[in-house]
Amino acid sequence: MGRMGWDEYFLRRGHSVHVMDQAWRGRSASHPTQINPVRAGQAPAASLPTVFAAGREDAWRIFRFGARFGESYPGMRFPLAAQGEFWKQMVPDWNFSVGTPNPSVTALNLIARRLGRVVLMSHSQSGIYPFQAAVASREGIAGIVSIEPGACPAATDDMAPYAGLPILVLWGDYVALSSRWAPRLAGCLAFARAANAAGGKVEVAVLPEMGIAGNSHMLMQDDNSHQIADWLVGWMARHIPPG
Amino acid sequence: MGRMGWDEYFLRRGHSVHVMDQAWRGRSASHPTQINPVRAGQAPAASLPTVFAAGREDAWRIFRFGARFGESYPGMRFPLAAQGEFWKQMVPDWNFSVGTPNPSVTALNLIARRLGRVVLMSHSQSGIYPFQAAVASREGIAGIVSIEPGACPAATDDMAPYAGLPILVLWGDYVALSSRWAPRLAGCLAFARAANAAGGKVEVAVLPEMGIAGNSHMLMQDDNSHQIADWLVGWMARHIPPG
Repeated sequence: MGRMGWDEYFLRRGHSVHVMDQAWRGRSASHPTQINPVRAGQAPAASLPTVFAAGREDAWRIFRFGARFGESYPGMRFPLAAQGEFWKQMVPDWNFSVGTPNPSVTALNLIARRLGRVVLMSHSQSGIYPFQAAVASREGIAGIVSIEPGACPAATDDMAPYAGLPILVLWGDYVALSSRWAPRLAGCLAFARAANAAGGKVEVAVLPEMGIAGNSHMLMQDDNSHQIADWLVGWMARHIPPG
Repeated sequence: MGRMGWDEYFLRRGHSVHVMDQAWRGRSASHPTQINPVRAGQAPAASLPTVFAAGREDAWRIFRFGARFGESYPGMRFPLAAQGEFWKQMVPDWNFSVGTPNPSVTALNLIARRLGRVVLMSHSQSGIYPFQAAVASREGIAGIVSIEPGACPAATDDMAPYAGLPILVLWGDYVALSSRWAPRLAGCLAFARAANAAGGKVEVAVLPEMGIAGNSHMLMQDDNSHQIADWLVGWMARHIPPG
């Protein structure tokens, strides 16, 4: 709706910003060798990757615009007037066929090592990647901001990799109304307790509990996106040690 | 190699710039319904799309870095020191399964209509699209710059859609050495003759004939890319009528 995106906004607030395209989503999603051997009859159909895409009816609920397609939660702040442009940005997700180690995680480590003193910020399905990067190596990682992650690390995981690292897990509104997201927020709270009992510095922030109401899963696109960005800039200033 | 890309450079030279991702290449290349029914055994393998990608060995020749992988033409100006980053940007081409009309062409018409007085600039495989857009509608199209197009319109096509429209077809160096590109340049010259005989304003410019030597097929990334951009800015100033 004409507002500046977070990439430019964080830049104007004094942070260098590097935006990463995930391996297996977006531009670099597919490989001919996954498709062509099957087409040529040289490999079985079952060897094709699993390709997922949420239609807008499902996505409406997943993104917590409302309980049913076309109805929005009271006070919900995603700019639905622009939804036509938004849906055009949806891309298929080939991520189910990603190998181990996930090349996006390896790339996060590489970027952190090159740049140094990096805050790794993730959202939704990519939410777990900064945590996985920290497990691989803490080199260059100054903090993690994970926004409505698909998963936090399990509370039963080894918590040593997170000790002393400033970590914020941020959630929007209406989470308790969502059978998809409520358990994930609960999982992040359990992770925070386990990590903090082991020397962690994990904060789980839920926007409506701080008086900021109406945010969907796509909170960086909601009509108060700059207010949330400002709050994140403040959080980083308070928690990330100066370089 | 650290130079500004053409998108930013043209902007700094006073042109609004809109960069388009082709339908079926890059971010929006694939659709789950092409893949999943075959995986589920509900459609035959032959219904899979054709997915093409040039490996770097082939691409080396196609892009006219040199005659054989690892050898470069004398004076060739692509910054091979950065080829590692360049190869990372290669994406599979699903374009063979694009429907009719090609949605990229429809999108060019839509953009031209919205913005008005647009110069449609294309490169390589996308080279023909601005011509196809002009055939569909000239509304909003002020000119065409096609850089080493995979094809120009056939000289036997109806030339009426191009009458009076400033069109530049630009070529780099070493074209005569390439069995892939030499016939395409010849095809563009034939198109220019046919169009200009029917009231067209088509110019085919070959950089080495203007004293600019060493350019590969990726001339917007060659080490003299700003020199070529400057020349294009001048060409537009001379040929596109003021708004």
